[in-house]
Amino acid sequence: MSSKISNSIAISFFLVLIINLSIVESSNKIRAHRPCKTLIFYFHDILYNGENGKNATSAIVGAPSWGNLTKLAGQNHFGDLIVFDDPITLDNNIHSNPIGRAQGFYFYDKKEIFTSWLGFSFVFNSTQHKGSINFAGADPIMNKTRDISVIGGTGDFFMTRGIATLMTDSVEGEVYFRLQVDIKLYECW
Amino acid sequence: MSSKISNSIAISFFLVLIINLSIVESSNKIRAHRPCKTLIFYFHDILYNGENGKNATSAIVGAPSWGNLTKLAGQNHFGDLIVFDDPITLDNNIHSNPIGRAQGFYFYDKKEIFTSWLGFSFVFNSTQHKGSINFAGADPIMNKTRDISVIGGTGDFFMTRGIATLMTDSVEGEVYFRLQVDIKLYECW
Amino acid sequence: MSSKISNSIAISFFLVLIINLSIVESSNKIRAHRPCKTLIFYFHDILYNGENGKNATSAIVGAPSWGNLTKLAGQNHFGDLIVFDDPITLDNNIHSNPIGRAQGFYFYDKKEIFTSWLGFSFVFNSTQHKGSINFAGADPIMNKTRDISVIGGTGDFFMTRGIATLMTDSVEGEVYFRLQVDIKLYECW
Repeated sequence: MSSKISNSIAISFFLVLIINLSIVESSNKIRAHRPCKTLIFYFHDILYNGENGKNATSAIVGAPSWGNLTKLAGQNHFGDLIVFDDPITLDNNIHSNPIGRAQGFYFYDKKEIFTSWLGFSFVFNSTQHKGSINFAGADPIMNKTRDISVIGGTGDFFMTRGIATLMTDSVEGEVYFRLQVDIKLYECW
Repeated sequence: MSSKISNSIAISFFLVLIINLSIVESSNKIRAHRPCKTLIFYFHDILYNGENGKNATSAIVGAPSWGNLTKLAGQNHFGDLIVFDDPITLDNNIHSNPIGRAQGFYFYDKKEIFTSWLGFSFVFNSTQHKGSINFAGADPIMNKTRDISVIGGTGDFFMTRGIATLMTDSVEGEVYFRLQVDIKLYECW
Repeated sequence: MSSKISNSIAISFFLVLIINLSIVESSNKIRAHRPCKTLIFYFHDILYNGENGKNATSAIVGAPSWGNLTKLAGQNHFGDLIVFDDPITLDNNIHSNPIGRAQGFYFYDKKEIFTSWLGFSFVFNSTQHKGSINFAGADPIMNKTRDISVIGGTGDFFMTRGIATLMTDSVEGEVYFRLQVDIKLYECW
């Protein structure tokens, strides 16, 4: 019986090894789709139009040959490149206390419809959050929700990855827009 | 004998724990180098030169002081920044049915030779693929093959990472080029 | 007793399964915070000012309406966009043998203080290193150390991720700066 038992143990052990190996080999395939952290923010962009220098948080810095630097270009702003430093708030009120800055760039990249591409960071240095979250991706503005990638982070957000869902919360002509950003982090360290 | 058995079980269990711990600790070291998904696409770029507004899919939106916005600059186009919205096809025929758009920017960044840097997305919304793949990296154009990073994805390509190998498939003067993109995804969720 | 033993084995096996499942589920939560690789480099940026064309390694290619392409703009250079191809050295001497190139772009993105955002690659093709490391993130220049993300890599740095700590090692007016870059890779393949 002793050998029967050790056989059982051996088999059990062998099975466990196989399971472990399969975990190692497929470690890049089996993943939890539940976020390890979720965050919701708003940010507010006031585009410089030649007259609002005091309030503007962004400016056109590149444009196609048919555009200029104080007015968004024709053809759905194709090629207009904007640099921004926008306040981040916890609610949709631009006068709320900013808890960080959204800093980066976006450009419009389709002639037939409004579409943009973004590369930016959320930079935090408050009691709530210290560190940064880095984003990149396509933003088909006319869709109600658009997903971009969280490509990394630092500080409190060390090495994080995830998805940010953008929603246009408000637009006022060509000067102001507000985005709601639902951040779902799937890699937390 | 009962205690001998439980000893064996205890040892077996202890060994398993050690194996598990070593998996957790080295989870960022042991990785499969086989792609979990491979995809091959082509995309087609027609640069605006002041005359081809109807067909152009890209435009110069930034240039060094010695350049302008309708002609690529001297010194191997150093500093020319281009925004694009290019059709993606499954073969190398620009007239094939586009299955998505390559949207983003590139710039030339070396005075002595053609070299560029790219940040862009493949945006899909067809029966084959829904979602986006985000790319960034250096593209030393004169090399036959160049590797850039897949830094994230959304939708069908949720959270993906990998490598994209770029190959110039065709160039026609300064107006048209076609890239073959071999995407190898090593992190699939 | 036999049934008692197989019970023990069954329980042991069941526990092991639970442990394994928890590993799979939390594989994106338990991570080693020790780098799998560290690297220290310097890179040297000489900005084109209209007169130093021979030595310049970077140039302004985008600027806000109040700026131009041969002089950094007012308001802490907000909106100035620079493309660069900078030599990488192992020490802080610009005359040391370059072991690679830092290629990419940065822009200034705050009106009240010097702050920038970077997207670039370290491109290596030497006996020491072959391949590239891709970076993105916010660089609050006035801080002594700033962390950005390593978002991917190719060749020797296949699929890598990590953090790069930037330190300004020298500044000479608006023409020259040198950055020390401490790269800590936490995902090595």
